[in-house]
Amino acid sequence: MPEKIEFVAIHSGMVTSPKGFFAGAVHAGIKEADEKRLDLGVLFSEADCAVAGVFTASKLKSAPVLVSRDRVTAGSGRAVVVNSGCANACTGDQGIADVKEMARLMSVPLGVPEESVFVASTGVIGVLLPMDKVRDGLARMALVKQGGHDLAHAMMTTDTFPKEYALRVKSHDAEYVVAGVAKGAGMIHPNMGTLLCFLATDASVELSFLKIALKRSVDMSFNMVTVDGDTSPSDTVLLLANGMAGNRAIAAGTVPGRAFQKALDRVCIELARSIAGDGEGAKRLIEVKVEGARSIKDARIGARTIAGSSLVKAAVYGADPNWGRVVAAMGRSGAEMVEQKVDVYLGDVCVMKSGVPQAFDVIAARKALRAKEVGIRLNLNLGRGQATAWGCDLTPRYVTINSAYTT
Amino acid sequence: MPEKIEFVAIHSGMVTSPKGFFAGAVHAGIKEADEKRLDLGVLFSEADCAVAGVFTASKLKSAPVLVSRDRVTAGSGRAVVVNSGCANACTGDQGIADVKEMARLMSVPLGVPEESVFVASTGVIGVLLPMDKVRDGLARMALVKQGGHDLAHAMMTTDTFPKEYALRVKSHDAEYVVAGVAKGAGMIHPNMGTLLCFLATDASVELSFLKIALKRSVDMSFNMVTVDGDTSPSDTVLLLANGMAGNRAIAAGTVPGRAFQKALDRVCIELARSIAGDGEGAKRLIEVKVEGARSIKDARIGARTIAGSSLVKAAVYGADPNWGRVVAAMGRSGAEMVEQKVDVYLGDVCVMKSGVPQAFDVIAARKALRAKEVGIRLNLNLGRGQATAWGCDLTPRYVTINSAYTT
Repeated sequence: MPEKIEFVAIHSGMVTSPKGFFAGAVHAGIKEADEKRLDLGVLFSEADCAVAGVFTASKLKSAPVLVSRDRVTAGSGRAVVVNSGCANACTGDQGIADVKEMARLMSVPLGVPEESVFVASTGVIGVLLPMDKVRDGLARMALVKQGGHDLAHAMMTTDTFPKEYALRVKSHDAEYVVAGVAKGAGMIHPNMGTLLCFLATDASVELSFLKIALKRSVDMSFNMVTVDGDTSPSDTVLLLANGMAGNRAIAAGTVPGRAFQKALDRVCIELARSIAGDGEGAKRLIEVKVEGARSIKDARIGARTIAGSSLVKAAVYGADPNWGRVVAAMGRSGAEMVEQKVDVYLGDVCVMKSGVPQAFDVIAARKALRAKEVGIRLNLNLGRGQATAWGCDLTPRYVTINSAYTT
Repeated sequence: MPEKIEFVAIHSGMVTSPKGFFAGAVHAGIKEADEKRLDLGVLFSEADCAVAGVFTASKLKSAPVLVSRDRVTAGSGRAVVVNSGCANACTGDQGIADVKEMARLMSVPLGVPEESVFVASTGVIGVLLPMDKVRDGLARMALVKQGGHDLAHAMMTTDTFPKEYALRVKSHDAEYVVAGVAKGAGMIHPNMGTLLCFLATDASVELSFLKIALKRSVDMSFNMVTVDGDTSPSDTVLLLANGMAGNRAIAAGTVPGRAFQKALDRVCIELARSIAGDGEGAKRLIEVKVEGARSIKDARIGARTIAGSSLVKAAVYGADPNWGRVVAAMGRSGAEMVEQKVDVYLGDVCVMKSGVPQAFDVIAARKALRAKEVGIRLNLNLGRGQATAWGCDLTPRYVTINSAYTT
């Protein structure tokens, strides 16, 4: 009898929903223009965690990325300090020193080793952190079980809502929670310090599997939101597993392993979708599915190119069923494509079948493009590769937001 | 004594400036919304031409690209038929038949072989050409020596001005003209049928060199305007050399060869800059120079990534000296970069030196970003590779233009 495993989304879930996680946030005043906003936060586990991380692929790496990437090699940790308003990138030796001081300052009251504290920052590049304010803020930090929501707010930059999700996993011999918090991004190219995501679970997971599982989930979620491998100097995803659920350590290639992967995928995808839907100035979430590709790689690059096409995004903004732009984006993506085999759908409306433009109901197509979630689907009919990418429409407001960010 | 070679821009030059080229255009009514605009044109040489071509790298190729790419393999030709308003892409066998009919219809009055006529189209994808209107338009076509300007207008879609340039080359034993006409493009991603460019010269050029020279010029001009290899199904660049200047055939690796290359580079760069400066909704031309790269390839990818970054483009629109976005774009471009070695300039204002942010005059930086031509320069201090890319600012109007194109 196959084991029954239940996945239940936790109402008003947060990154501190799993056992043993605490968080807090303060207004330190790092982003001066905004007098009262939370801009400095901490996530803490009362037990030692196995930790995996994925960081920016950019040649330019922020100071927190350099330090945290180094610390994550130990495979364990206890806390994350995060701030918005300043990315601490292009800040040289002083930037590194500031990261280490932030970790040290928090490690003392927490009673944990300095090296077990990770740091992540998002905001403007090329400016040093106002360390007086950071020190003062960290001194006032209080950690509580329900602190996840505040932490989510402290990470926001141009986000219009916090991104949080928690999922309970139940099987006959284990019950645990996988949860996460993320900050959003400008959607054509990620904004300053783009993607920060902290994932927490009380499951016990073998470190080797934790690393693989995180990489897999990130590949099908956060890596499918941004365009063409775009990445900021600050991109950081951390996964902390503290084992307090008391389950037997989850390993790769097992039934519990598959269940954990599924849960992690789901949490990451939910957060990725939230990020896409909250793209700067965006009104609509665009979900692009490419099926029948020669390979998963082809499907991914195709879906990402379409979701990232400014012309497609602008057409969705105007609810203009200009599907030629979808095929054109697929065509230039680099993925294998044979025009005569391609099917294209806007929502449920087939606009192209086996490469032949279809007479379609323009009103229905426009309606599909006006939905809060716009579905675009292609079948390349070449193989079994499939992938989903998320984006948002491009609106005049995106430009307005991004034309005056530092000043 | 080194030979003296003069390059003189021809005032009000056009693609028909070289000897033996004629052109004409009519309003055929292909783009119905626009009642009076020229939308169908012809370029013709009274003598046989050596012909080289560069076409879209997209897997999706328009019918005119498929036919013209095939015909250019002969290395010779006489005429080009071009239309705007319909790209004739995703149009299957009927699309191919229409292209061939366009060429045939024009070949008869011109008295040239059908296969010596090339076709290029730009406009909406997935719609068949209104061949009745095309037939009627071609029947009314008149070709004149001063027809270059009309041809330039007939190629325009969302362009706000025609793109033309002609350069006279004089040396002690030869005098000839290199000229070109191009249509512009939406600038983040090329618009429908993006780049069409027809180059004409009365120089006599060996076919083998003509092909190499065109590829080189395109690589440093049109390929440096678009982003990340973005390309539409319709991209077409054709170079026709009719030899009527009576010079000895120009060959590779010679002094006349270098002069011809220089002239062709200059014509293509002028046209490319015009295209960038006329990006949809754009107010400013952005010129990005990357120097000191490990290789030319690195310099090109870096310059293109910066010029194509929506965040950089939006910052220029807002004259916001947010130089971190420039470094971030360079960092994620894939090119080799060592943060501690990078110098960055906005106009003449140094904002980063050896990786260290500089205290700079914000007013001067803002002024540089408000110029009609905005210069952004990076020195990576790693090697000798350098390249220049062109882009434009991203404005709310770009989105407005592209949110309702088909309808």
